[in-house]
Parts: sequence; structure tokens; C-alpha cells
Amino acid sequence: MITAYAAKEPGGMLEKHTIEVGELGDHEVEIEVEYCGICHSDISMIDNEWGFSQYPLVAGHEVVGRIVETGSHVNSLQQGQLVGLGWHSDYCQTCYSCNTGDENLCAAATPTIMSHGGFANKVRANEKAVVALPDGMDAQSAGPLFCGGITVFNPLVQFDIKPTDKVAVIGIGGLGHLALQFLNAWGCEVTAFTSSEAKSDEAKSLGAHHTLNSRDSSEIEAAANQFDFIISTVNVKLDWNLYLSTLKPKGRLHFVGATLEPLDLGAFGLIGGQKQVSGSPVGSPATIAQMLEFAVQHNIKPHIETFKMSDVNNALAHLKSGKARYRIVLEKD
Amino acid sequence: MITAYAAKEPGGMLEKHTIEVGELGDHEVEIEVEYCGICHSDISMIDNEWGFSQYPLVAGHEVVGRIVETGSHVNSLQQGQLVGLGWHSDYCQTCYSCNTGDENLCAAATPTIMSHGGFANKVRANEKAVVALPDGMDAQSAGPLFCGGITVFNPLVQFDIKPTDKVAVIGIGGLGHLALQFLNAWGCEVTAFTSSEAKSDEAKSLGAHHTLNSRDSSEIEAAANQFDFIISTVNVKLDWNLYLSTLKPKGRLHFVGATLEPLDLGAFGLIGGQKQVSGSPVGSPATIAQMLEFAVQHNIKPHIETFKMSDVNNALAHLKSGKARYRIVLEKD
Repeated sequence: MITAYAAKEPGGMLEKHTIEVGELGDHEVEIEVEYCGICHSDISMIDNEWGFSQYPLVAGHEVVGRIVETGSHVNSLQQGQLVGLGWHSDYCQTCYSCNTGDENLCAAATPTIMSHGGFANKVRANEKAVVALPDGMDAQSAGPLFCGGITVFNPLVQFDIKPTDKVAVIGIGGLGHLALQFLNAWGCEVTAFTSSEAKSDEAKSLGAHHTLNSRDSSEIEAAANQFDFIISTVNVKLDWNLYLSTLKPKGRLHFVGATLEPLDLGAFGLIGGQKQVSGSPVGSPATIAQMLEFAVQHNIKPHIETFKMSDVNNALAHLKSGKARYRIVLEKD
Repeated sequence: MITAYAAKEPGGMLEKHTIEVGELGDHEVEIEVEYCGICHSDISMIDNEWGFSQYPLVAGHEVVGRIVETGSHVNSLQQGQLVGLGWHSDYCQTCYSCNTGDENLCAAATPTIMSHGGFANKVRANEKAVVALPDGMDAQSAGPLFCGGITVFNPLVQFDIKPTDKVAVIGIGGLGHLALQFLNAWGCEVTAFTSSEAKSDEAKSLGAHHTLNSRDSSEIEAAANQFDFIISTVNVKLDWNLYLSTLKPKGRLHFVGATLEPLDLGAFGLIGGQKQVSGSPVGSPATIAQMLEFAVQHNIKPHIETFKMSDVNNALAHLKSGKARYRIVLEKD
């Protein structure tokens, strides 16, 4: 039996909820949750913004904890091991994406929240989706790496970002504050687009070498032809054609923040300089493992505020207020 | 002195026009025009659709002819050589793009039409922008390769399209009929999106293995998750999000046709499957040379209709009518 905090209806407050989980699957592990980060997508799922939530719904997909039980066929993980679990708790393991190391793109992958998530005392997942924390990693702050972190790290791997690249980050929040750290450690010259002077110093402390005011279009216009790679972490509509103009030839504008309004891009802005626009979700287990090692090596950590698991409703309210700096982590009571 | 057909004002009929060109530059060659293809962008320039035309304007940028004079420092080309000249007649040769073999992305490159183009008895260009025709190439039909051909060939090189890729072409016209031939020879499984049954057989004769009706959205919906690469050669607005849905994870929707209406793409459609949208213009001299060899090797030829150079106004009217199958080539009188 698992004790969790569940939403019983779209937008509902989370309530204590017990789940009968039966016998552990052959390839599953059971993790005792020590920490669980809160991500904006937890709120999207609780509120059924994307239309596929099922209730009672247990959110939470930035889990860190110890393995307390392993299925009979599990051979990659052991009881007592400190591990993390992100957006996916299982993959089909037979499709082309799975077979080529892109399990995160598997159309039949199981979102952790859809079985039940980490706002609970325990979670279960296929061993394939569970990644061991490397030695030296701070467990308390590691959770947000498993969704926020991998979401901004994975594009650097996928698109072969080079240390010689000039890069920029739009939006300095839960994802952006990690993107700045990763890109700085990656060796890049990093610019942060920030919406306020106050955030400019903060962005620099996180790894930005320069900042540009995202609310000053003349400042952005003046930055034409500067960047090889821009990663947008925001979920609001900006003047994307203006940002395209700040890319060098062959530059890429990459979206990890899901703005709902269409990206009204001009074809000419893409064609002239052979520019690219793309998007991506989380990352594969192999890339998560790579990210964790890179984070330890470079002392990259999510900046977190902590709440007790039993205080999850206040934690969610704090996240919704937009005041979290920058990720929230729930700790077991 | 060069004798050309020039537009004296936006949208004007072309009239005979003589140009005093002075001495040939040290790195220039003078080409006697034997053939010159007509491209939609010639009409765009004659009509000043893009706002930077200067009059009198001599269009024409798909030139094939023989070198009749070489500048004192020219060493890559010789008098009498059969060559071609495309969209660019010179590059800055010092910027990052030029230095890394992407001369076609040089912001200071000279469009052939902006000095004067190939609707003339002779053209001049920097040797760097002039590419020799390989042995075995049909000179009469080669002109359209220098703009239409390279525009659809270059993305295969730039984006590392593989023979194992499933690819599709939107729009079977001047560019699309070449894209089908190139992609078939590239080893890919090729689908053509065509707007009519009549064009379906034609598309297959050009190299398509399958066709889909671009006016039947249910047929496109049913093709979800099929393609690694789609190249759009049209300049009208389509339901781009629908086409995105036909891409596999990591698939690319690439624009070489410049639609003026914004591409109202949904960020979610990019993020979920790590999809990409991009655009590109012509190609570098090195890639043009590679394309010409590939075309000879695989017997790829533009399908052309010919007009005498002196009949250029009728030829332009025929292109505007949309009835050209598929490219028009002017022959010297």
C-alpha cells in the first residue's frame, strides 16, 4: 500500500489517498520517496490543462529516494541504492525510438504521473526509467534535475552544441536557471534574456556572461546575428521573429517551454540564413545519467526551496504565485 | 558592352538595353550566355516584390555558357570552358560563412541580378561563384540546376539526409520535380504530396514511390508519424501543423518555398517528438559542384520548355500562367 497526496478532480486540493499496488512487477523497482521536486507540469496535470489527466491523480515526477524492493528480473539496480525518477516511469522498449536510445520519444511511454507520481511515500517504476545518483550528488536538490534539468540539458546533446557556440537563454526560472549553469559549464559564451534589471545580476551569478532586456525590442534588434543557439524556457508568446533575427546563419531557436499560442514564424526568416526552430521534451535514461555526472563534475545544482510533503498544497500555491526561486522540493515528513 | 533585356520599372516588360561594363575585374570571368533558366524569383525581382530591386534590372540567374574572358588573377577557370552561374555572382570571401564553406549564407554576397543577370548576351561574375559543368552534362537543361536544383539538393547535404530516410515533397513544380529526382537517386523512399490526381502519375514518373493528396486532410492525418524529412517547395499557406504530425520523432519540415504568411506552428507539435522546422536558400559553390556530378551520375535533369532569349516576355508570361512543365530555359538567339 502506498500513501499519496492526490487530486480528486481537476484543480482540486490534494488530499491523502491510499493506493493498493499489488505485487511488484518483474522489472519494477519500488522507491521510498525522500524528495520530490514540483514542476509546472504537475500543476498542468492536476488542473487537466492538457486534457488527459485521470483522477484521483498523484502528481510528482522529480523523485529522489532509495530502492526498497526490486522485481525478480531487475538486474541493474539494488535495494538501498539512491536513485531518481523523472517524467517517464516506463517505455515500450520495442519501438524505433526505444531501440535507438531515444526512449524519451517513445509514443507508448508511461508518464510517471499516469500510474502514480512522487507526491507519495513510495513510487514504482520500470528499472529502465530509474537512474542511480552518482557519488557526490546532493540528494536534496537533485530531484529537479530529473525533469527541469534534463529538459534543458538534453538539447545540448541532441543538437551537438559546441563550447565555441554563442548561446542564449530566454526565461530565467525553474528551467532557465539550470540552462544557464549547464551552458556556462559547457564552455559557451552565455547570454540571458531577462525581463527585469533585478534578474540581470542573478542571471550572471548563475552563469550568464551577458544579459539583454527581453522587454526592450530595440536592445534585441541590436543583437542581430549573435547566437548559434537560443533556448526558450518560457510559456508566453514573444516576438519570435525578432529572436530569429538574433541568430547567426545556421542558428537554432529551440523551445522547451510550451507556449500555447502559435509560433507565427516567417518563412523568410528561416530561409535566408538557413535557420532552424525546434522543440524537445525531457531526455533518455542514458542522457539523464550523463547529465547527473556532468552536474556533479561542475557543481551544478537546482536552487531550491523546500516544503514538507504534507505541506504540498502550500508548496503548489507558492509555485503558482511565480515567486519560487527557482524550484520547489518536497521532503518526506 | 553587354546587350541585355531589362525591366525599366517594377513589373515592366523587358526591353533591349545595353550596359557599359568597363574592364573585367582581376578575379572576374565573362561568360557568353548560351542558356538561361527562368525562376520565380526572377519575376519577384522584376516586380520588386522583395523591395530591394534596382532599375533598369536585368534578371536571370540560371546561366549556362562559355567563358570568353578571364581576369588577370583568375586561375580556377579558363577561356572556352562551359560553366554555370546561379543566384550569387560574388561573395565577400572573408566572413565566417565564407570561411567555412557556406558562401551561400554570406550576408554580403552579390545576387547575380543586382549587378546584372543572365537575360543578356554576356554576364560577369567572380570566379569563386562560377562552377564548371562536368563531362556528360546536358548544357541546354543544366541552367535550372544552378538555382532550382541546388535549392532542393543543398538541404540533403546540410541536414545529412540518409538513404534510409522516408521523405516527402510538398509541391510538384519547378523545385519539386527536381527534389523528387534527387531524393529517389539518394536512395530514399519518396512520397509526393500532390494537389491533383493528374499530377500523381507524373510525380511517380519523376521518382515518387507514393503520392498523397495534399487537398485531402484526412489522407494526410492518416499518414501520421511517417516521414523523417519533408521539403516544402510551395509558396502558399498550408496546414503546417498537420504536416508536422506526419513527421516521425526527430523529423524535419524544411522550407525552400517562401510563403509570405506566418507559419503558425504549435510549440507542442515540435516539443513532443523533438521535431524541427527549418529553411534554406541555394547552396555553396562546392555543393553546386557536388550536385552537378550527382545529377550526371544519376541522369537527373530539369524538365524544360525552351524559348528564344528575344522571346523573354512571352516566356515570363508562360511561367506566370503556372503552365510551365517544369522550368523554362531561354536560348541565345
